Amino acid sequence: MTVIERLKIDLGNDTGEIILGRDILKDLSSFCNLNRKVLVVTDSGVPAEYAEPVLAQCAEGHIIVLPSGEQHKTLATWQTVLEKMLELGFSRKDLVIALGGGMIGDLAGFAAASFMRGVDFINIPTTTLSQIDSSIGGKTAVDLNGVKNIVGAFWQPKLTCIDFELLASLPRREFNSGLVEAIKAGLIADAALFERFETLNVADIEIKLPELISAAIKVKQKVVEADEKEAGLRQILNFGHSLGHGIESYYQLNELLHGEAVGIGMLLITEDEKLRKRIENVLLKFDLPVTAVYDKDAVFELVCHDKKAAANTINLIKVEVPGKAEIVKTPIEEIRRYL
Amino acid sequence: MTVIERLKIDLGNDTGEIILGRDILKDLSSFCNLNRKVLVVTDSGVPAEYAEPVLAQCAEGHIIVLPSGEQHKTLATWQTVLEKMLELGFSRKDLVIALGGGMIGDLAGFAAASFMRGVDFINIPTTTLSQIDSSIGGKTAVDLNGVKNIVGAFWQPKLTCIDFELLASLPRREFNSGLVEAIKAGLIADAALFERFETLNVADIEIKLPELISAAIKVKQKVVEADEKEAGLRQILNFGHSLGHGIESYYQLNELLHGEAVGIGMLLITEDEKLRKRIENVLLKFDLPVTAVYDKDAVFELVCHDKKAAANTINLIKVEVPGKAEIVKTPIEEIRRYL
Repeated sequence: MTVIERLKIDLGNDTGEIILGRDILKDLSSFCNLNRKVLVVTDSGVPAEYAEPVLAQCAEGHIIVLPSGEQHKTLATWQTVLEKMLELGFSRKDLVIALGGGMIGDLAGFAAASFMRGVDFINIPTTTLSQIDSSIGGKTAVDLNGVKNIVGAFWQPKLTCIDFELLASLPRREFNSGLVEAIKAGLIADAALFERFETLNVADIEIKLPELISAAIKVKQKVVEADEKEAGLRQILNFGHSLGHGIESYYQLNELLHGEAVGIGMLLITEDEKLRKRIENVLLKFDLPVTAVYDKDAVFELVCHDKKAAANTINLIKVEVPGKAEIVKTPIEEIRRYL
Repeated sequence: MTVIERLKIDLGNDTGEIILGRDILKDLSSFCNLNRKVLVVTDSGVPAEYAEPVLAQCAEGHIIVLPSGEQHKTLATWQTVLEKMLELGFSRKDLVIALGGGMIGDLAGFAAASFMRGVDFINIPTTTLSQIDSSIGGKTAVDLNGVKNIVGAFWQPKLTCIDFELLASLPRREFNSGLVEAIKAGLIADAALFERFETLNVADIEIKLPELISAAIKVKQKVVEADEKEAGLRQILNFGHSLGHGIESYYQLNELLHGEAVGIGMLLITEDEKLRKRIENVLLKFDLPVTAVYDKDAVFELVCHDKKAAANTINLIKVEVPGKAEIVKTPIEEIRRYL
């Protein structure tokens, strides 16, 4: 085991820890109490051997393997997790561990948040996307009737384990797609991070990954500590997401990966041509798409339907200079001109 | 409108208000912002005219009428509320109002807690049970596979409206059953309240109700402010409930009312014969049952299954002297001797 960094996330009543390193899983019990009932929630896309060292350390370890894919991020799948907990006689003192990508973290996190009104939760993200973004900040949710993340809770993990070894099996396209959230973190709050992506030699990505992910996590951590419940500042994390979600939904969540859609969303919302070109260059470096074909009216409708749209206005996140984001209250009709 | 009392509930980040009075509903907008989308959640057992004055004050008022009865307190019913909110284009700034008994408050509260990870919630309880107990303290939940309140959230209402006029249509049996939670409040933390029940002339219940309910609410408020998340002290509110829930479940939630089962639960757990007799006299005064026929093994199993049972021990709440409760960690097997 190599521990690279340990971060505390401090939210008043709630605190959690984030550990970054390699081969952490086999020593997980040195960071948290596994001497209780533990349910590991994972999916069929996660290598089966990832769960083994975790289960081996639990006093009473159980596993549930869900079908893989965003289309299963539903109340029905979430209910199967709750039923499993019920069947195992889970109490308030027991523990849920998510082992997988963002879908697993969000869904298992919401199960932990709502079973008996909340049990302990540990998140072990296995994709770049979830290591950089979705595992940090305590947002949990599932989709309902095709609307993303519309039902959920704020529920902070006691521990988030960022183990870079777990990325080894990730397909390259998915690996690259997840990096978009780190590029975004740089754009909204850390110019040096964005510039590191600009100067990065793609062949070095594996070596540079820990410091890039660490910097991106710190951006998110700072924002979440200042505004856990997304009353204001936290919205800047949605840079590229309002339009990105619309385009992602347009493809029914199965053509574009989330990060790919967010990348396109960032380009669409960026008005300064020079900056747009710089973002485009970084995306292209990782073979990420920079355009998508879609029906403008349909995407507009999906954006309106999206949960970030309140009444007749939408809070758009704009970046004019890398490292600085602005929240701009915009009449919803104006979205059309970005599409 | 007559406002009898206004209480603030203070939970650090979360604050809420409780208003006790008569005919409050037609002036609801003077206590909260109804100038937004509002979904009134009610059930077929609640007089239709209760909702009318509320809807009349809303900028955009909608109503969903759920089937009445504890058997509908399910994830499926909860989902229909979420789908209604989705269909109405609810945003984070909109409002859910529960208008009904405990089932409606718990279910609508959980919908408010989880839609977009939380929207504003107002609770207007229409039964003695919900006015005295379930509407206070921010516990929301639904049942799953017959296990009561196993999935939910802590979600404090911004406003709880205790309007005694709404009790007018309540059947006597249900009215009396709800009083058990006030008797319980006296037993665990307010000896004077319990004694008021002992000396009360039943014919005066209508007149005395506001002060009895007010005293009971203050007991609960104090306990919840000290321990919102039920880490310790809040458990005393479960006096009579561990066994009561077991017996209630044994009858599949359709023979005994909740308060009736709790009353029997309080008697079963009380070992001092003199105190048991005093409790029995109060229950009998309100025509409440003091015994039930059940299979001991079956109830024992149900108690073990109940969410208050952690591992091999259970925290039983004991009262030896009215006004003082103790939490006694008990081996689960010992439950049998109380049954």
